[in-house]
Amino acid sequence: MTENSPALQIALAYHEAWTNKDLERAMSYIAEDVVCDAPAGRIEGAEAYRAFMAPFVQILRGATMIAAFGDDETALVMYDTATVPVPSAPAAEYVTAKDGKITYSRFLFDRAPFQAARQ
Amino acid sequence: MTENSPALQIALAYHEAWTNKDLERAMSYIAEDVVCDAPAGRIEGAEAYRAFMAPFVQILRGATMIAAFGDDETALVMYDTATVPVPSAPAAEYVTAKDGKITYSRFLFDRAPFQAARQ
Repeated sequence: MTENSPALQIALAYHEAWTNKDLERAMSYIAEDVVCDAPAGRIEGAEAYRAFMAPFVQILRGATMIAAFGDDETALVMYDTATVPVPSAPAAEYVTAKDGKITYSRFLFDRAPFQAARQ
Repeated sequence: MTENSPALQIALAYHEAWTNKDLERAMSYIAEDVVCDAPAGRIEGAEAYRAFMAPFVQILRGATMIAAFGDDETALVMYDTATVPVPSAPAAEYVTAKDGKITYSRFLFDRAPFQAARQ
């Protein structure tokens, strides 16, 4: 299903935008009532989601896609990021998309090296 | 590709085995020269991989698949686990499979709640 996955197309367009530090364009793929289950807990609504992503985009140095799959309504991606405090910070996202926007995201990364860098 | 993905079949058989605490059967899907990039670093070889998985299988209470995709040679899965120290510990695995065995795994989970539980 991946070749013609509408959800993956949205997930990749979103990914391409924020990894190029274009948070405005990235947010154009996020539904107003988005729900995101992240390591620190649930984030509800586009405004809270933007506040969650903005600091990460600021410390981002680069990103490399590891794998990307999708079907009609869902997509699953894994990528590595290089950030200012953590040289390799991989993440995975499982998203549900509808009408061109991400409505749900399960977001996974290892908080441990970021916590260690803060200390 | 997911419906007929040989790599996903192996990834799911492996997943089914270890989430049922059958580490012996799980290891039958792991190549002798497996390489696994995990949050704490690279694990090389089946023996080291078994030593990495054994403690986790012991604290496992249950697992729920969130998403699973694959193509000929690779698969990407995300799942949630319930463990003794951490009630919800989601993880993602990107694997390469060959001749019925996993030869490479990129393994991702949040170490922070496990570190917090140890303190």
